[in-house]
Amino acid sequence: MKKNILRSKIKQIFIKHQLSKKHSEICADYLIKAELVEARSHGLLRLKMYCDRIKKKLINPKPKIRIKRISSSISHINADNSIGFVSADIAINQAIKNAKKTGIGLVAVNKSGHYGLSSFYAEQAVNKNLMVFCFTNAPPALAPHGAKKSLFGTNPICFGVPTGKIPFILDTSTSIINRGKIRRAYKLGEKIPYGVALNKSGKITTNAKEALLGTQLPIASFKGSGLAWMVDILSGVLTGSSHGGKTKDPFDDFTGPQNVGHLFITINPKIFVGRNFMREIKRNIKLVKKLPKAKGFSSILYPGERKYKTYKKNLNKDISIPLKILKEMDYLNAI
Amino acid sequence: MKKNILRSKIKQIFIKHQLSKKHSEICADYLIKAELVEARSHGLLRLKMYCDRIKKKLINPKPKIRIKRISSSISHINADNSIGFVSADIAINQAIKNAKKTGIGLVAVNKSGHYGLSSFYAEQAVNKNLMVFCFTNAPPALAPHGAKKSLFGTNPICFGVPTGKIPFILDTSTSIINRGKIRRAYKLGEKIPYGVALNKSGKITTNAKEALLGTQLPIASFKGSGLAWMVDILSGVLTGSSHGGKTKDPFDDFTGPQNVGHLFITINPKIFVGRNFMREIKRNIKLVKKLPKAKGFSSILYPGERKYKTYKKNLNKDISIPLKILKEMDYLNAI
Repeated sequence: MKKNILRSKIKQIFIKHQLSKKHSEICADYLIKAELVEARSHGLLRLKMYCDRIKKKLINPKPKIRIKRISSSISHINADNSIGFVSADIAINQAIKNAKKTGIGLVAVNKSGHYGLSSFYAEQAVNKNLMVFCFTNAPPALAPHGAKKSLFGTNPICFGVPTGKIPFILDTSTSIINRGKIRRAYKLGEKIPYGVALNKSGKITTNAKEALLGTQLPIASFKGSGLAWMVDILSGVLTGSSHGGKTKDPFDDFTGPQNVGHLFITINPKIFVGRNFMREIKRNIKLVKKLPKAKGFSSILYPGERKYKTYKKNLNKDISIPLKILKEMDYLNAI
Repeated sequence: MKKNILRSKIKQIFIKHQLSKKHSEICADYLIKAELVEARSHGLLRLKMYCDRIKKKLINPKPKIRIKRISSSISHINADNSIGFVSADIAINQAIKNAKKTGIGLVAVNKSGHYGLSSFYAEQAVNKNLMVFCFTNAPPALAPHGAKKSLFGTNPICFGVPTGKIPFILDTSTSIINRGKIRRAYKLGEKIPYGVALNKSGKITTNAKEALLGTQLPIASFKGSGLAWMVDILSGVLTGSSHGGKTKDPFDDFTGPQNVGHLFITINPKIFVGRNFMREIKRNIKLVKKLPKAKGFSSILYPGERKYKTYKKNLNKDISIPLKILKEMDYLNAI
């Protein structure tokens, strides 16, 4: 489907579900972006879920988002159960504003929902020449080290920095693979890789459904578990959101709003060394790239490079949409 | 050896090496602390190295440490090639001061050296009821994803948060195992686990000597590589220190000062939710701890808990020192 047609279709669907025109556009743009970077688990696959939650009044289509100024660096945003895209979009813009003014911005969001890829927000800060951390929590998917039940989300760590070329954007979940990939495998009847998830009785499984009912494994055992816990504290406890396994699964749990939390930290990278920063970050990347390559590698990529190239490659192409999702869209548009 | 005797011996050694009384005490306390938490690779094992570097004028025993105020939240510290303990001690105290005043502190240090364990500094902020990140870079030990040569250090990510009880302190290197473990395996003629290191020609090796001559692998392949890169940018590029594999190995490279960089971010955890923070962090830990345990686990520990218990266990015991190190100390004291 042509991008502009898809955009207006998605926009239309959200407008029919009571979102404002502006909020509908924000959501459409982020969903399309997920398709363009081929993070399909964060794209159109989720459209029906968002609409279902709006219909059940678990996402507030007309949120009164309150921004509380704590200092010129620090803000808190009560998202009023807004769809995650909208509150995170407001929050990253506030964090950018704060860092531009003072050198550092800290913006916390509570009462929000799933916001797509963290890299969407990191990219915006990097495009304004800022360094950035984005943290968000997510529904239980990972067992803490020593436990046999999920509690942490796949809790990503996202860090971005301007390079003068393609943004350096690390966006890494603390699970071995994204939950979205497992959901997509389940939806399409595919197997998942070996060693990334356990079934309910604690055994390794390649069956997507069993994995969804079981638990995913964190990267590097106790290290990844600790990092996931850190993200739960930063985006959950600090912001005043759900935490400790209480974030609701957007697909399965309709007992209340998700109450996801996000935290954005923005830093002016020139604050300490001035213009030298850009010279040194370029040198840094050059030094890594010119290392002798390991077997099977013809080049060394920095985080974000591959995704950026995927985005550029797909930017002027039509977006292919599975039949099942096309049907969902028709259904959602016909309401 | 009794702790107070050991302390005065170390202090005496540093004073003989031209450090001020105050700086000598700071160094002695951090080195003893490393022994008490049984992080022996960061303790007395390094005493001779520090002294060697002072003698070779690579560590400045009388540094003119310059603190530059950028705002009430942000400071930069030029450590003037001070021993790492001293500049990091000054830096974390500045970061604490800044966060106490404004809610957030950001302190960068350049021209510093190896500072021991990141958790030492995190702990100080946590004891002042702050949340904290500590980042430092280190000499090459890890191959970036796709390379067959070391460039990143084992670049730890350290995050601390007050809990009302034992501090939550995550302090995790981005390498799969500590270099110290490989050194120990080499000494004892043991093999190292499969998949943690490459030999010189880029092949996986379980031979400890080959691993020491080759390169260690990051946790979770490209994810850990990205995290190590992030730490290199935060503590190296941002602060105006060495980066991109240019940090000198303190044991082997006497061609110049190390020029290590550190970055501290401190946050008042009550800034968004007030007193609720302490209630919720306690609830968070309780929720994780009460999960059903995996096979082989009788309890779930949070990061920092085990190290704290080790510290408490050793606090009133004599510190046992290998003969080799005792001899080194006598030698250093006789100068």
